[in-house]
Amino acid sequence: MAAQGTAVGEPGDDTGVPVAPQVQRVTVLGAGSWGTAFAKVLADAGRDVTLWARRPEVADAVNARANPDYLPDVRLPDRLRATTDAWQALRDAQAVVFAVPSQSLRANLTVWRELLPPEVPLVSLAKGVELGTMRRMSQVITEVAEVSAERVVVVAGPSLAREIAQEQPAGAVIACADHDRAVAVQRACSNGYFRPYTNTDVLGCELGGACKNVIALACGMAAGLGFGDNTLATLITRGLAEISRLGGKLGADPLTFAGLAGLGDLVATCTSPLSRNCSFGIRLGKGETLAQAQQATHGQVAEGVKSCTSIVELAAAHGVDMPIADGVRRVCHEGLRPRDMAAELLGRQRKHEWR
Amino acid sequence: MAAQGTAVGEPGDDTGVPVAPQVQRVTVLGAGSWGTAFAKVLADAGRDVTLWARRPEVADAVNARANPDYLPDVRLPDRLRATTDAWQALRDAQAVVFAVPSQSLRANLTVWRELLPPEVPLVSLAKGVELGTMRRMSQVITEVAEVSAERVVVVAGPSLAREIAQEQPAGAVIACADHDRAVAVQRACSNGYFRPYTNTDVLGCELGGACKNVIALACGMAAGLGFGDNTLATLITRGLAEISRLGGKLGADPLTFAGLAGLGDLVATCTSPLSRNCSFGIRLGKGETLAQAQQATHGQVAEGVKSCTSIVELAAAHGVDMPIADGVRRVCHEGLRPRDMAAELLGRQRKHEWR
Repeated sequence: MAAQGTAVGEPGDDTGVPVAPQVQRVTVLGAGSWGTAFAKVLADAGRDVTLWARRPEVADAVNARANPDYLPDVRLPDRLRATTDAWQALRDAQAVVFAVPSQSLRANLTVWRELLPPEVPLVSLAKGVELGTMRRMSQVITEVAEVSAERVVVVAGPSLAREIAQEQPAGAVIACADHDRAVAVQRACSNGYFRPYTNTDVLGCELGGACKNVIALACGMAAGLGFGDNTLATLITRGLAEISRLGGKLGADPLTFAGLAGLGDLVATCTSPLSRNCSFGIRLGKGETLAQAQQATHGQVAEGVKSCTSIVELAAAHGVDMPIADGVRRVCHEGLRPRDMAAELLGRQRKHEWR
Repeated sequence: MAAQGTAVGEPGDDTGVPVAPQVQRVTVLGAGSWGTAFAKVLADAGRDVTLWARRPEVADAVNARANPDYLPDVRLPDRLRATTDAWQALRDAQAVVFAVPSQSLRANLTVWRELLPPEVPLVSLAKGVELGTMRRMSQVITEVAEVSAERVVVVAGPSLAREIAQEQPAGAVIACADHDRAVAVQRACSNGYFRPYTNTDVLGCELGGACKNVIALACGMAAGLGFGDNTLATLITRGLAEISRLGGKLGADPLTFAGLAGLGDLVATCTSPLSRNCSFGIRLGKGETLAQAQQATHGQVAEGVKSCTSIVELAAAHGVDMPIADGVRRVCHEGLRPRDMAAELLGRQRKHEWR
């Protein structure tokens, strides 16, 4: 498919919302797969995009219209320029997008914070919760960059980078406590294949992205045990129910979890063979130990293995029952067998679906 | 896996709900794949089950512990007896389960209504809306059997019969306006692999099952166009949002759609290669006409092809916007190309996720 070069969201279009400040020059910090794919989304929406890469060979490749390490076989658009110079990348930006891994956002921000232009939206692509502090990514940004929460925007929803880079149609959520700022970023990234919706529930959107990996591990385990789509659908549904219970207790809007940042991201992660958590769960379901699964994945541990403990602790602190997340935690860290986890989940007290 | 023979839900178990009337002898009318699988679920939960089959060769096979036409390679439990004699099947039943196709339920019920024991729960497994009358299955039952709505119970949720017959873990919803009756049926069918939840929102549960086929057609079209899991997740999420909008307008509980009867059944149907609507949609997405797709499937038209028109009409009558269902209707009945449907959905006015 040809790249979409038309700029949408310009003044005069009929969005039915108050006019938001224009965002034309956008800088994306981090040239991994999602950072590069989102930079392409912005460029295809008609923005002038600068992509900051840590390694010069990646910047050079992007300037030659490719990023073979992260998005093989994708031709990048002309409006996209790359640099390794953060100062150069940031000085004229009208919006800044953080696309570094969640566990390194704090360290990177500490380096960048002096360079961030005042007032512009600070946009987070990272999903997950900071280990140790249990902070969400938007909280890390307000804390380290010393900005108000109204300036921080979160991109949530299904985000399989490779598929978006191939211009496959997808929805997303642009969440910000300040609705006008969400609309400005929504306009900046809307194009012929990427359809963002706004939402003001930043907490709910981030929680959906952080918890989905744990449910994806459970879905992988079920597949590893040989179970099919019925079991998968049940785990996704009951997994979403427990995420919603936790979110409701923490003050999120329950509707958020029924949307793209909750359900949408969960379905994409739990059904995609590209999902690392899912494939890690399959190994555990087939009987591999955590150590064996880790060895098979070149020492990498899936995100959900790390975050399940924090999530279960958070839930317990708020009196929320999360049986699937707790089962995953016990499989990963207490040696429970996946088959016994399934039997336990099925043997729980019978109840009303929501009470 | 071995069949679970333990009876659960007996008096004295700790369900925390008022004691419901005991259901021990259950009759299932209809020996297709879902009827047979649900009869097995009941037998594995310790019930004495009589399965009525239209054809004597099916009844004979079931009495020899198999139903090779509908559930190949599944050994049926000993507690399950089959007959072609409806009077014999029904005379002692403490609950009656209707497992005939939705479009033939009315005609079958007209024959059976004199034989139905008084007071017992009448349970519907059929999903869909009666063409012409737009009645839900529970409404057909109350109308033809001349019983109060409180006697009618609906089984909803993901129900890929073959997987349930293989004893793969699954959740389900047992919906009845009378909560005690829902609990009685819940107890009757709970076993080591089938976990039913109760709900009193019969309307919402039935609507979820009727609308999912239309969204599954759209998901199939997307797959036929070559799109992946991100697009699938987006369609499932936005599809559920439009089903929920319709349900809310008709008086259903929005939570129902976030549960197994909404989301759960939708995910199972949209991700399973066993789903006829999904595979029919794939043909349309690849460019086949309705006539070509129908020819390739031996003259059968997927359920969603028939129901999309009624659903869009129902939505229009209540002022509800259902862009995905309407796109499916126009592809099926007005010659819209699936690729143009995708472009139209992406080109709609940008908006807040829920407003």
